Amino acid sequence: MSIPNDVVELIQWNARSLDRLELGTWLETFAEVTRYEITTAENERNGWPLGLMHATNKNQLRDRVASIESVNVYEPHRYRHILSPTLIPGPGVSDQYITPFVVYRITPSKPTVLFVTGEYRDRVVTVGGRAVFAERRVVLDNDQIDTLLAIPL
Amino acid sequence: MSIPNDVVELIQWNARSLDRLELGTWLETFAEVTRYEITTAENERNGWPLGLMHATNKNQLRDRVASIESVNVYEPHRYRHILSPTLIPGPGVSDQYITPFVVYRITPSKPTVLFVTGEYRDRVVTVGGRAVFAERRVVLDNDQIDTLLAIPL
Amino acid sequence: MSIPNDVVELIQWNARSLDRLELGTWLETFAEVTRYEITTAENERNGWPLGLMHATNKNQLRDRVASIESVNVYEPHRYRHILSPTLIPGPGVSDQYITPFVVYRITPSKPTVLFVTGEYRDRVVTVGGRAVFAERRVVLDNDQIDTLLAIPL
Repeated sequence: MSIPNDVVELIQWNARSLDRLELGTWLETFAEVTRYEITTAENERNGWPLGLMHATNKNQLRDRVASIESVNVYEPHRYRHILSPTLIPGPGVSDQYITPFVVYRITPSKPTVLFVTGEYRDRVVTVGGRAVFAERRVVLDNDQIDTLLAIPL
Repeated sequence: MSIPNDVVELIQWNARSLDRLELGTWLETFAEVTRYEITTAENERNGWPLGLMHATNKNQLRDRVASIESVNVYEPHRYRHILSPTLIPGPGVSDQYITPFVVYRITPSKPTVLFVTGEYRDRVVTVGGRAVFAERRVVLDNDQIDTLLAIPL
Repeated sequence: MSIPNDVVELIQWNARSLDRLELGTWLETFAEVTRYEITTAENERNGWPLGLMHATNKNQLRDRVASIESVNVYEPHRYRHILSPTLIPGPGVSDQYITPFVVYRITPSKPTVLFVTGEYRDRVVTVGGRAVFAERRVVLDNDQIDTLLAIPL
């Protein structure tokens, strides 16, 4: 089964909006009824509930974005997402999309560094003719991150 | 010519099974009559025959997997494959697929590191309605690897 | 809107020809009337005109390639491009293609290193039935590069 084109574009535009720090555009990729979580593979394997970032509705995402845009205390840096092609986890699965990724961190006057690797696990719905995330789980491969996770992944 | 969808999925599921250490699933992506080799670009350029891993049939792959699963002496780590989109090497080629990749190595409580870059060169056949590898050559860019290559790439 | 297959192949073959140091093949991916520029996101943000490499027609690209192939004074190294799937920047855009990338630098007997991240911004035309670049802007994320940029990106 090939991945629907609007799902591919949704995942690409989401990553691009983060890389350009266009967090309003990033918000638009989520449904009103949504769930967003950043966790680690180790957390998941052990059934530990606490993720690195967690929102159970879109207003919590709006709050996060407002907080980033107003306070803005973190070291100025940007991301670059490189996405592996999106896949479905096995034959016959049709509502779950997996996209492996690597994110680099770009800081002015410093070398670019590998930040994190992991995978997106997405459920996508169509609202008003537009594909949006009903759920996005960001599962990181490494069990620790060396900096504050200010901007969503 | 666009890449057939079952070929794309085969390549994705193969990488995913390695990243999840599901080596039984990895085995299922190969035909019974298959050839698997890991080598380097330098080896290939010089016509040197000896690869880093070499199997001329599926039973040799089964042995390798059994050995990894039983002995298990290597440092516990996992991979993360990021695949560049699969291409055919030129116009009119229809039975050869190239997939550039980078593999990161994830080790508990250590920073994730770049492990290897290279490309898959695949021939794919359909057996019982299912796409499987008739040949996979894993050609690494670097001429040396800094650790034992325990898990296939 | 899905990306036309000949555009995807053009972008893939261009990267592959660079990775194999086949600069004649790389030249063939450009139209006679073309524009090629390597710049940085910072340059672009500030409206600074000077890029790291700049050609306003194909003959300037030919000169560059001839110069690389004849003089050849740079440290022998190769690239490995890993491409994120190509996207269009938003709904309804049909003549502009964006491809995020990471490039690793491979040097004999040295560890492979992250070289640059960035994105291609391409305009593609069909000439004689073949897709070729009418414009390629290579926008790098980092504001500085730690080595001479000898080979195009």
